[in-house]
Amino acid sequence: MSALRLALIQMAVGTNKTENVKKACKLVKEAASKGAKLIALPECFNSPYGTQYFKEYSEPVPGPTTKSLSEVAKECQVFLVGGSIPENENGNLYNTCSVFAPNGDTIAKYRKMHLFDINVPGKIFFQESDVLKPGNTFVTFNAGPCKVGLGICYDMRFAELAQIYAKEGCHLVVYPGAFNMTTGPAHWQLLQQARALDNQMYVAAVSPARDEGATYVAWGNSSTVGPWGDILAKTSHEESIIYAEIDIGRLEEVRQNIPLNNQRRLDVYSRPNPCESLKEMSGYNIDVNQHVD
Amino acid sequence: MSALRLALIQMAVGTNKTENVKKACKLVKEAASKGAKLIALPECFNSPYGTQYFKEYSEPVPGPTTKSLSEVAKECQVFLVGGSIPENENGNLYNTCSVFAPNGDTIAKYRKMHLFDINVPGKIFFQESDVLKPGNTFVTFNAGPCKVGLGICYDMRFAELAQIYAKEGCHLVVYPGAFNMTTGPAHWQLLQQARALDNQMYVAAVSPARDEGATYVAWGNSSTVGPWGDILAKTSHEESIIYAEIDIGRLEEVRQNIPLNNQRRLDVYSRPNPCESLKEMSGYNIDVNQHVD
Repeated sequence: MSALRLALIQMAVGTNKTENVKKACKLVKEAASKGAKLIALPECFNSPYGTQYFKEYSEPVPGPTTKSLSEVAKECQVFLVGGSIPENENGNLYNTCSVFAPNGDTIAKYRKMHLFDINVPGKIFFQESDVLKPGNTFVTFNAGPCKVGLGICYDMRFAELAQIYAKEGCHLVVYPGAFNMTTGPAHWQLLQQARALDNQMYVAAVSPARDEGATYVAWGNSSTVGPWGDILAKTSHEESIIYAEIDIGRLEEVRQNIPLNNQRRLDVYSRPNPCESLKEMSGYNIDVNQHVD
Repeated sequence: MSALRLALIQMAVGTNKTENVKKACKLVKEAASKGAKLIALPECFNSPYGTQYFKEYSEPVPGPTTKSLSEVAKECQVFLVGGSIPENENGNLYNTCSVFAPNGDTIAKYRKMHLFDINVPGKIFFQESDVLKPGNTFVTFNAGPCKVGLGICYDMRFAELAQIYAKEGCHLVVYPGAFNMTTGPAHWQLLQQARALDNQMYVAAVSPARDEGATYVAWGNSSTVGPWGDILAKTSHEESIIYAEIDIGRLEEVRQNIPLNNQRRLDVYSRPNPCESLKEMSGYNIDVNQHVD
């Protein structure tokens, strides 16, 4: 077996935590009934997204939400990437993703490492670090033939994360995420395609559905991108589930066609000073300080 | 002054070297007359692109082609990125870009570091390393307020190059390049936008015009992308010159809005083992070898 059916659940998240978790489990069952073996929920699926909500909705991990996810993973016999929830550990809050195996075991726990602190005046201001602490480690797990790396939302902007997962042998990076109406149209799809193409791997990003009435309006547009940078599955902004095949054979084919991994100039990248100015070359008269008007 | 007018010359390259160089100089004058202060020519602008042509068209650097470029840079009082030419140094061939200051001085010389060796069966096979040797160093130069890094074509696929230039303080990376009819539509624009967005810098890629009768058919579609990942200027496949403002103030604004450079987790990236498996976490039963079906 070299392919795995991946489902991304772009669920509509409300203000009732119990209802959110119940709906997530219902949608996981639906995806499993359609043959998905690896299923991912969105960022902050049991709580509205916003610094004002995280404390109120937070809970320990393991806790009631992860218990429900573990049970549904076992019932459906699937690998389940449990989106993220506000985690409370001794009063410290994290944006945390847990992953469950088909036997219900928790096989990964990842805390968002790059907190979402941005300020585009008049467009979007957000300061996750006001209330959350960051994780300090990258996390991978194996889902059958597929090695998976985890990131959450803003992590996607940091090319290093996907590069490190690629070096670790990951075939897929899953990003539960919730971009907004400013950065969503500008960057959401581009970042996924960039990560996939540069690292010749699969990339999946799963958002909550858009709720125009929420304080933070998610862009939606969950999608899965292939190792050629091509969009394999994509939805709009409403609640829906999208499916794609994670095909390790296709990934290996792309890496054979364009053998980037054998062509990287690690000998140069690793130098303390990989850039040389012309001063080190002979035969030229140099005036780099010359200015145009 | 914090902005610089950049022109990309998407010229039609023929089989007559003297005519190619003459045309390049004519188009540089045209771009300068429209106010461009930094002007870039495409990859392999004095020779058809192909391993069978490189030796025949090659010449030393400095040599007749770079002499003409130096003269036109001085005449027009512009910074000129001389695309690339097949360079011959003691029988060794390189794909080489030279840069000239407004006084005619050569201020940078970059040899393509990642050679174009790919094989997409039935679509595109190319093996630059059959005849070319790679360069071994990154090169930057200053054009007025703008620090510029150089790459050539296939170099664009390697995220590390742009990342290194960004760390060196570059505001712009210029890639003379000639993607083809397979990788062009799939990757050309995406790679430029990825480099620009990830590093919050300007990226310009300048191709020869498309010649359907050539052995290697260039995709064209030269473009300049801004630090927000937005396409600022773009052309189709015919001979043309496109213009864009390289605005250091805008670049600084983007970096202030989304302060990636202060948010990178260098503490984690630099660890020998930045990925931890759940084995290092307590309280979980682990079975990562569990397979579906």
